[in-house]
Amino acid sequence: MDKPVEKPHEAIAALLADDLGAVNALIRERMASRHAPRIPEVTAHLVEAGGKRIRPMLTLAAARLCGYDGPYHIHLAATVEFIHTATLLHDDVVDESAQRRGRPTANLLWDNKSSVLVGDYLFARAFQLMVEPGNLRVLSILSDAAATIAEGEVLQLSAAQDLKTTEETYLQVIRGKTAALFSAATEAGGEIAGASPAQVRALFDYGDALGIAFQMADDLLDWTGKTDSTGKNVGDDFRERKLTLPLIRAVAAADDEERAFWTRTIEKGRQNDEDLATARELLDRHGALGSTRETALDWADRAKSALTHLPDHDLTAHLSDLADYVVERLR
Amino acid sequence: MDKPVEKPHEAIAALLADDLGAVNALIRERMASRHAPRIPEVTAHLVEAGGKRIRPMLTLAAARLCGYDGPYHIHLAATVEFIHTATLLHDDVVDESAQRRGRPTANLLWDNKSSVLVGDYLFARAFQLMVEPGNLRVLSILSDAAATIAEGEVLQLSAAQDLKTTEETYLQVIRGKTAALFSAATEAGGEIAGASPAQVRALFDYGDALGIAFQMADDLLDWTGKTDSTGKNVGDDFRERKLTLPLIRAVAAADDEERAFWTRTIEKGRQNDEDLATARELLDRHGALGSTRETALDWADRAKSALTHLPDHDLTAHLSDLADYVVERLR
Repeated sequence: MDKPVEKPHEAIAALLADDLGAVNALIRERMASRHAPRIPEVTAHLVEAGGKRIRPMLTLAAARLCGYDGPYHIHLAATVEFIHTATLLHDDVVDESAQRRGRPTANLLWDNKSSVLVGDYLFARAFQLMVEPGNLRVLSILSDAAATIAEGEVLQLSAAQDLKTTEETYLQVIRGKTAALFSAATEAGGEIAGASPAQVRALFDYGDALGIAFQMADDLLDWTGKTDSTGKNVGDDFRERKLTLPLIRAVAAADDEERAFWTRTIEKGRQNDEDLATARELLDRHGALGSTRETALDWADRAKSALTHLPDHDLTAHLSDLADYVVERLR
Repeated sequence: MDKPVEKPHEAIAALLADDLGAVNALIRERMASRHAPRIPEVTAHLVEAGGKRIRPMLTLAAARLCGYDGPYHIHLAATVEFIHTATLLHDDVVDESAQRRGRPTANLLWDNKSSVLVGDYLFARAFQLMVEPGNLRVLSILSDAAATIAEGEVLQLSAAQDLKTTEETYLQVIRGKTAALFSAATEAGGEIAGASPAQVRALFDYGDALGIAFQMADDLLDWTGKTDSTGKNVGDDFRERKLTLPLIRAVAAADDEERAFWTRTIEKGRQNDEDLATARELLDRHGALGSTRETALDWADRAKSALTHLPDHDLTAHLSDLADYVVERLR
């Protein structure tokens, strides 16, 4: 049988197999709790369930392609994955309560409690891990990222259902919820390797642009009919009244009648069965889907451009392919 | 008019008035969010509402009585208050959902979202603040405390309603939920001041014992009839089926009939109006209230003993009074 064509993240994982093994071992070790066995129970399905480990891989790749030969990229990669897992647990609480429109079950609430507290535990474990390399610059990068993530999540909450949301606010939200951890992952990897300021900057730019492209692609796919990488259904953002880039652009171009439609469906939340199809038509009418696609592809190109400032290395080529891969679904 | 007798924390606040002013200014500065104005809205009532600032005061006092003359005890005191505020926000989510027994309002859930995310923001801001002094030992102390706090909260969740809960587990829970931040506050203050290992150890022991005495007193007052410092009502722990020290001791001494009562009311949660009075009788019968009081007073004495290893200073005397003060309500 022919071997199927390797995806870029699989190629990176193959090159970094030993490092990734060490990261997984460290994650299992630090996820444990001597006193509270519920902690590994709650996290196991998230940490063990074979996610693609994109974020820790970015840290490992950044450190390696800058020539790092020490042990601490492993700690930083595990840190990044812990922060990611903690935010997933807390997102569950925030998003599930939205989906159920104020009518959760007691069982859901029990899960919420564990999700909140176990998420806090993973945040704390992440901070313990990031202290161990003893690199203050890395500590700033990662603690700044944690603040940007939380700020972006709160901003998303207050921007929801608000037709005045601008493209600038949208960019801030997705930088927070997605790109900040990507860029901190790559930047911290370069910093621990002692890369030059220009290289560290390029690594930040790559992670930032990659994260933005990735999230924009997800937000576009929420409108264009395939189930996206997070397993959401088409139209979820419309039903949850989230203002993502396609919608923001359609609202900006809306005439009076269209604006009344958006006010009813998004601001007031009065939606009926035909509204999703109408919304989709309005987006098409103003070219909002096509232009969002162009913007996402542009961010992927920016990610690739950033890589030109980095050492020539197998990993660099695969990171370039990864930028193409996150928007490939849009082509 | 005669000036009323000063309480120990008021005496400490008076001695540290300039430092506390600087802490409050730093808290206001760092609580702000350029991008998400909801953050200061949510935190304002917690941070501004004139709590006693016991925890940051412990950090300031520890640093000062060890002769510290630099600027960074302010950052660490603000860190400690941010961690405290973040845990309060998350406790709200966990405790409110319990009180309403699975029937929260949409409004409550909206608050829950903000509480989870703004709590995360404050945790991240706390970590940014603690990085600034550039002291790795302090970073270990505070990130370890954050993990112990979260672990204690999860342990409390899984120990609830479990009649097999031991005194050892109870001590672990209250160390996590209360004492860990007290002891990290004093230890970090000593460490930033460059105190000797013996002094740092004594500061840890003081904070640890003070926190344990404080929490035990609260848990006892939940049974003995006065509203406690957190504004809970008498019997709340019984109704919420929380196993605190008095109950653990009564269960350990229970005969078969008493055990059946505890199994029904605590494990199965079938309670009627007379049960609180019966429970209180069973606690009295086995001397569980008196013995818990003795244990709490003993921890206050341990806190005072730890202070004998520290420099003679006005602050040391007031810290000793503070240990008496947290259990004074029991005398």
